[in-house]
Amino acid sequence: MTDEKRLEQELQKVLDAIKPLDGIAMEKARARIDNLTKPLGSLGRMEDLAVQLAGINGDYFPGNNKKRVVVMAADHGVTEEGISAYPSEVTAQMVANFVAGGAAINVLARQFDVEVEVADVGVKVDTNLPGVKRVRIKAGTANFRRHPSMSRSETLQAIFAGIECAEEAAEGGIKVLATGEMGIGNTTASSAVMAALTGYETSLVVGRGTGLDDEKLRHKQEVVSGALELHKPDPSDPLGVLSLVGGLEIAALTGLILGAARRSIPIVVDGFISSTAALVAVKISPLAWHYMIPSHLSAESGHALLMDYLNLKPYLNMGMRLGEGTGAVLGMQLVEAAARITLEMATFEDANVSNKEDQGVGSDVKGAR
Amino acid sequence: MTDEKRLEQELQKVLDAIKPLDGIAMEKARARIDNLTKPLGSLGRMEDLAVQLAGINGDYFPGNNKKRVVVMAADHGVTEEGISAYPSEVTAQMVANFVAGGAAINVLARQFDVEVEVADVGVKVDTNLPGVKRVRIKAGTANFRRHPSMSRSETLQAIFAGIECAEEAAEGGIKVLATGEMGIGNTTASSAVMAALTGYETSLVVGRGTGLDDEKLRHKQEVVSGALELHKPDPSDPLGVLSLVGGLEIAALTGLILGAARRSIPIVVDGFISSTAALVAVKISPLAWHYMIPSHLSAESGHALLMDYLNLKPYLNMGMRLGEGTGAVLGMQLVEAAARITLEMATFEDANVSNKEDQGVGSDVKGAR
Repeated sequence: MTDEKRLEQELQKVLDAIKPLDGIAMEKARARIDNLTKPLGSLGRMEDLAVQLAGINGDYFPGNNKKRVVVMAADHGVTEEGISAYPSEVTAQMVANFVAGGAAINVLARQFDVEVEVADVGVKVDTNLPGVKRVRIKAGTANFRRHPSMSRSETLQAIFAGIECAEEAAEGGIKVLATGEMGIGNTTASSAVMAALTGYETSLVVGRGTGLDDEKLRHKQEVVSGALELHKPDPSDPLGVLSLVGGLEIAALTGLILGAARRSIPIVVDGFISSTAALVAVKISPLAWHYMIPSHLSAESGHALLMDYLNLKPYLNMGMRLGEGTGAVLGMQLVEAAARITLEMATFEDANVSNKEDQGVGSDVKGAR
Repeated sequence: MTDEKRLEQELQKVLDAIKPLDGIAMEKARARIDNLTKPLGSLGRMEDLAVQLAGINGDYFPGNNKKRVVVMAADHGVTEEGISAYPSEVTAQMVANFVAGGAAINVLARQFDVEVEVADVGVKVDTNLPGVKRVRIKAGTANFRRHPSMSRSETLQAIFAGIECAEEAAEGGIKVLATGEMGIGNTTASSAVMAALTGYETSLVVGRGTGLDDEKLRHKQEVVSGALELHKPDPSDPLGVLSLVGGLEIAALTGLILGAARRSIPIVVDGFISSTAALVAVKISPLAWHYMIPSHLSAESGHALLMDYLNLKPYLNMGMRLGEGTGAVLGMQLVEAAARITLEMATFEDANVSNKEDQGVGSDVKGAR
């Protein structure tokens, strides 16, 4: 049996282990939330999030919990085409910045008590730094404007690198995961994957990334269009799409999401690149959708459309477009807030507060609902 | 000199002490942010917030800082008209819930290490509980469908109650303030104030509050329209508008905002009622706008329009409509994040990261910008 065949079978086992959410736990959480001292439904989407969390966890979600953002780093051969405002070397330099604690993701993770795991799944030059998890599949993808980004086997290996990170997190008591990434050129790969899987025109899915001007934006669109014409990726084969025009970190994030779902861990999805991985994950396993928690709306132009396509509505709108998991870490605090609200708020009865359409005091409230 | 005249003169002194933001501190912050290890502008509105904070503070804003949400509580005579889904008694019951720590605002404040101050500026029955700041002006407003809510002197006294809270916060080392409120009937008063000051039709500014059905919503609109016809408030006299159709807690929040601006403290604005107070504050002192920080978009129907009118763009969209300061406390974390980003991130030079259009390593970066 080929390596590829074996990995596909292994992946199927992971997918088969992803369960639907626990409906009884969700009903129980909804009933409790409806009896907390606030107007019915007045916490809006925070209530829906709390119910989702209970469904994921099989019971009320713990409020005070360990959180981790996994930053997948890799390089992209397509940078040869001049599609990024920054040189490829920046990927490795930023990985060093992550482990030194100087990047935006470090600052936000410190503020909110979130662990940062940095994984090298294919940086061009082996980062080989203490604090970097080495799960290198190869030294960056090929230039997908001319060749497939990677083989199908390499794609599966990158996915398993992500699944492995989710497994380790689960074993280590992590209760909430978030996606992060670093890879010069990865908005280009994400746009190509998104276009291939959704059928949207490249003009809608290709954006300015880290800061292209109009002329370079047009060039980036041509590179993506040209690659799609060359490879003609099959939208019904998400693994094939990833192999042809994806990236190692996008594949690893797809694996992280699938692995989190398999271990019943909610996964907070960052911006454009992370959402592309979420798209691939949903195409591979529709059930994985239920474990996803949106965070922010990126300023990268394709992100709003992608979130609509995924039926995920971002909670935050900061106009950010940095990646690294920065938006997801902000979103993790909303997860904790939703969990704490469910557990820590007083009920009408506890607090002796009159409920709607009930002119007396709390003791009658349960009967009145 | 009458009490009213004296208070108006005192208020003018407060307004005269509100300064424009410090442009030099803002330029310095922008320059630093532009040299941090991230693509230029990639933290979007978080960068703008960091610059605003520096302008308020006169230097980089401190990252780790004391925060307080002030929850102003009062009752509304207009509840006699049957405009709320909940009875008036709930105001006092929720004040007791706040000091007992069981309300949503307590849960979120604990999570984010924010102090909760609860002030009784005019609950119908004197709450008289340990932990409640008593700054009662009177036992709730009059029914503004028939009479003015309060006298001009009472309005000024309520504003000064809020200014006093800001003063005490400043003296106590609080670096960020947020607005919160509790008062059955206060979306009705807020809608009336908003309509009077903006000229928008009542159908646009009156919403379902804590949960009215269609019939009661129409009735609430009629109550507001009727009150505006009766009193004919002068939009060029914000104090007069507050007196005629406002509320004690709305006036106190107006004072809190003006007092925060006077003491150069950023003030995070919660949902519909708090934003109405922000509207009154801006009408009294346009400079106060620069100290305001939006937080969430409320599900209460007039809020989006009000935020547009105020030119404040909410960062969060959780579909919440609870009040108490719950959205503002979530927003406070974005304030801290913006401050920390400015102070704690590495520059390109620090981290030896290549900058855009600079194919070498960080040491040349400053020259390249």
